[in-house]
Amino acid sequence: MDSLFTVNNVWMMICTALVFFMHLGFSFLEIGLTRQKNTINILFKNIFIITAGLLLYTIVGFNLMYPGSFIYGVLPDYFIDLFGLSLPENGLTAEYADGNYTYWTDFLFQGMFAATAATIVSGAVAERIKLGAFMIFTIVYVGFVYPIVGSWKWGTGWLDQLGFYDFAGSTLVHSVGGWAALVAVYLLGARIGKFKKDGSIGVIPGHNIPLATAGVLILWLGWFGFNGGSVLSADPGATSLVLVTTCIAAASGGLSAFLVSLFKYKQYDLSMFLNGILGGLVGITAGADVMSVTDSIVIGIIAGALIVLAVSLIDRIKLDDPVGAIAVHLICGIWGTLAVGIFGDLASWSQFGYQLVGVVSVGAFCLLTSFAIIYTLKKTVGIRVSKQEEQEGLDIHEHGMDAYPDFRLNQH
Amino acid sequence: MDSLFTVNNVWMMICTALVFFMHLGFSFLEIGLTRQKNTINILFKNIFIITAGLLLYTIVGFNLMYPGSFIYGVLPDYFIDLFGLSLPENGLTAEYADGNYTYWTDFLFQGMFAATAATIVSGAVAERIKLGAFMIFTIVYVGFVYPIVGSWKWGTGWLDQLGFYDFAGSTLVHSVGGWAALVAVYLLGARIGKFKKDGSIGVIPGHNIPLATAGVLILWLGWFGFNGGSVLSADPGATSLVLVTTCIAAASGGLSAFLVSLFKYKQYDLSMFLNGILGGLVGITAGADVMSVTDSIVIGIIAGALIVLAVSLIDRIKLDDPVGAIAVHLICGIWGTLAVGIFGDLASWSQFGYQLVGVVSVGAFCLLTSFAIIYTLKKTVGIRVSKQEEQEGLDIHEHGMDAYPDFRLNQH
Amino acid sequence: MDSLFTVNNVWMMICTALVFFMHLGFSFLEIGLTRQKNTINILFKNIFIITAGLLLYTIVGFNLMYPGSFIYGVLPDYFIDLFGLSLPENGLTAEYADGNYTYWTDFLFQGMFAATAATIVSGAVAERIKLGAFMIFTIVYVGFVYPIVGSWKWGTGWLDQLGFYDFAGSTLVHSVGGWAALVAVYLLGARIGKFKKDGSIGVIPGHNIPLATAGVLILWLGWFGFNGGSVLSADPGATSLVLVTTCIAAASGGLSAFLVSLFKYKQYDLSMFLNGILGGLVGITAGADVMSVTDSIVIGIIAGALIVLAVSLIDRIKLDDPVGAIAVHLICGIWGTLAVGIFGDLASWSQFGYQLVGVVSVGAFCLLTSFAIIYTLKKTVGIRVSKQEEQEGLDIHEHGMDAYPDFRLNQH
Repeated sequence: MDSLFTVNNVWMMICTALVFFMHLGFSFLEIGLTRQKNTINILFKNIFIITAGLLLYTIVGFNLMYPGSFIYGVLPDYFIDLFGLSLPENGLTAEYADGNYTYWTDFLFQGMFAATAATIVSGAVAERIKLGAFMIFTIVYVGFVYPIVGSWKWGTGWLDQLGFYDFAGSTLVHSVGGWAALVAVYLLGARIGKFKKDGSIGVIPGHNIPLATAGVLILWLGWFGFNGGSVLSADPGATSLVLVTTCIAAASGGLSAFLVSLFKYKQYDLSMFLNGILGGLVGITAGADVMSVTDSIVIGIIAGALIVLAVSLIDRIKLDDPVGAIAVHLICGIWGTLAVGIFGDLASWSQFGYQLVGVVSVGAFCLLTSFAIIYTLKKTVGIRVSKQEEQEGLDIHEHGMDAYPDFRLNQH
Repeated sequence: MDSLFTVNNVWMMICTALVFFMHLGFSFLEIGLTRQKNTINILFKNIFIITAGLLLYTIVGFNLMYPGSFIYGVLPDYFIDLFGLSLPENGLTAEYADGNYTYWTDFLFQGMFAATAATIVSGAVAERIKLGAFMIFTIVYVGFVYPIVGSWKWGTGWLDQLGFYDFAGSTLVHSVGGWAALVAVYLLGARIGKFKKDGSIGVIPGHNIPLATAGVLILWLGWFGFNGGSVLSADPGATSLVLVTTCIAAASGGLSAFLVSLFKYKQYDLSMFLNGILGGLVGITAGADVMSVTDSIVIGIIAGALIVLAVSLIDRIKLDDPVGAIAVHLICGIWGTLAVGIFGDLASWSQFGYQLVGVVSVGAFCLLTSFAIIYTLKKTVGIRVSKQEEQEGLDIHEHGMDAYPDFRLNQH
Repeated sequence: MDSLFTVNNVWMMICTALVFFMHLGFSFLEIGLTRQKNTINILFKNIFIITAGLLLYTIVGFNLMYPGSFIYGVLPDYFIDLFGLSLPENGLTAEYADGNYTYWTDFLFQGMFAATAATIVSGAVAERIKLGAFMIFTIVYVGFVYPIVGSWKWGTGWLDQLGFYDFAGSTLVHSVGGWAALVAVYLLGARIGKFKKDGSIGVIPGHNIPLATAGVLILWLGWFGFNGGSVLSADPGATSLVLVTTCIAAASGGLSAFLVSLFKYKQYDLSMFLNGILGGLVGITAGADVMSVTDSIVIGIIAGALIVLAVSLIDRIKLDDPVGAIAVHLICGIWGTLAVGIFGDLASWSQFGYQLVGVVSVGAFCLLTSFAIIYTLKKTVGIRVSKQEEQEGLDIHEHGMDAYPDFRLNQH
């Protein structure tokens, strides 16, 4: 057995495990930043996403995203392989991908990515969306929209041929989730109590900040695999550079958001610190392999500042995003994608143009498709729980159980 | 240094770390699904298992399970090496195990497995067992019963020679724990309030569902190492297939349990979803390296359905298993073992027969030994805490501390 | 690409990720063992340490610790590279470090270590230190003191030339943190209610023992990377031995502390069990690569006993260390360093002498510098929050938020 092939594959499997682990990070972050009465519901959604997302990617997504491209007209071939993966000849040998990984590793790494887009939406719509509607949305979005957009670049589709660059998915994963979050939040409306009649903005504090903090640290750990694995081999120079730029952007993003929010609000705001870290991570993701240390610091600082401004702006335009998913994944996803045209090895006006085309085209497609899906759901099965259910909590209504039955709780 | 030897050993060390991390998964799952008043006690048991289990495996288990076999009469040789491991000549070279790992890695990976059997029992007996009795049971079961059974197959003993197949331990780890859990639950009796005088079954809800959910995700992550490491090398094709079948069975098991319980109880039951994932994981464990994607889906679906039915059945026959350990580890362990004779590369009537022999012989041995141990404990030191202690909580009685002293609690 | 270089680098990157993850372990441990009213504050400190620590190490520490040595007079050269890392020629090739890792991996692994020293202090000063003062201390200690001391040994400075041995940092990381914790605790004074007027010692229980337990298991996992990565290559024999000695010392330390505290206090004390595990881990860290299995057991047993005695002694001399950081990191750090002269491959009277010189010189330097920093802070900005803030909690005063707003709380 070729030892370089073996080590490449080991690295990719470890990165797969780390990306899988991000689902615990998202789960902790989302429940931590929302109220205890909706905890079971959020966990149920997240567990649904990882299980259904993986099976959908098995049955539909992987074939749709990579071998051919839905858009480019190999529909008949595609349906032949619809049910179940089919191991190509040499899929387990060094010939499959230049000795970088096997077919199975390829599938599983990509499958773990796929579920992430829906998870991003999950946080934004928390505490008021109907579970059934969300599950249908997840199936369509993870099963079809994500792989189609992914095929444009990573399936060597038209964006790739144009020159668009998105190393690990600032646009292809994070913005894809972020755009749908934006649409969903708009169509759902705000939680009761968020925007008051007198125009003031209510604060609905998260119920478990230790778990939210743990979520961010777990996500940061997961990003070692998310970005590190996107090298698609264990190449020592490339992978280690990517880990450095990733960690430095995370640190810079966090410190920047902490300092900007301290300056703006005169408060040591842990939530902003945490979301700043995530903003830095999303921001570096598009160009983690082409940035210097200094570039990473600057990208992180700007991402952190954008988080503080975006959270405030989203509040002011009366969109209710309980966990800050739009600021983190959409705004910093756009920023990171554009930053590839401004900083690092690829920086040029033409590259900036390609990046802009990517941002706009993916944005348009995601806005349209997510609007079509969610609006249809709204007009058919309905997307929002009843007022009573929202006030009493989704846990007891949809799941018949409490997250913390032994503790005395404040209802609000 | 041989680079293939090095990468094999790196993979095995990472898998060792992941199997170690499963102990956090078990801890979170067990405390999450039980009441807060017994939290310290459960954590204490789990910490005892991992520390004492590892030391016992150092002093007794590893020598007992592998070099010779207790049953086959090398008792004198064995006692020579009783205290402490002894590094064999070439134990750190590629000659030790065909370049797949070193002697130290071998020991540590197997040592992490050993403690798992007792952990499975820990969940089933929670909230009412005496700590001292449980610790004695752990010492005997991890120190002797587990390695003896393990030697039958993994120590190339009689089951191995017969043709029995158990890739990563559906029987040798999970059922070994599951049978003892069954015996212990039977001898201990149900928790106060579980089975009421009018014949109805009381619901004793778990106190921290976020941690229980985290436990399942951590266990799933750990299974990357549990099954992935059981390849016993970093072979790219074998390891990546194993991760794929493992993850797909987990996802299928979860979705199956969710849908079956939705159909049966008209409820979105998060506990069933979670236990279904674990059932899928246990179910694929015996044949993770010989199954196709489709096989894995089917094995997971059946495992998930079995979980729902088994949990209900175990309740009906008045056995009180607070975390569903018997359903997950025993029932799905048996299912996964038999499935090797039905699906995948080894499927045949004769293989099914070998599997059945393995299930029955291991079952008989574990039932007998665990009954002997626990019954002896019951008649001597006693295995059940007093009624007062059970009602007031084991934490305050056995440990003199609360798990959450700053929170106001509902006692029940 | 050289495959041995690649696998070495993969191992080092994984170890880097594991050391990063220790910050979640420290966070959980520290908040778990303190009161809920100070949870946000502790998390904020920990998030500050990992982000600022990493950036400081980028800008200052790495250059200060390794290429030349501050103490040895290459100050001008050093300032040339002050801002940002500069990739040396061949920094990404096998020539950089004999094919063991790249320059970027080197930096990131060391950077993750750097923040640990300040984290150790964080626990000891919890619940009463001013956030601003702590942040200034962190900047100076992580940015300058830690790398200077590190350069003495790991930067091939005078302690290295003398013959002092400290494999992964019992002294260079843990004691460096521990000495500052001692000084800080002394200068800060005890928390209100810890030492009563009648001479009795108040018990201030931790508010979330499940998270504290998770913290210890995560730290143990992280130690796979902390010690395993300190081999500085993936050498199969050395790395696997290190993992074995590390895990066995952890298990022995835990069991020892459990049994000693059971004997001393007639209680199954989970906190002691957990701190015993950490004591064993710190104790083995100086010599994890030169100890046998038996040595590791003995080192762990002594470390565990030291934990119980030290916690009691620190209480008796009226020092208030809420999480036991001084016992774990300072006492067991000293013990582990001296143990290299007593047990294992290097044991000799002369080695014991070198170890003693290391302990004393590092101790003197850390005591002096941390006293200078913290005393200056005390006399200028102040280091202790007001009595009112301490009683009502730092979370609400410094951060304007609660960690668990949906739960009803006992104030104390």
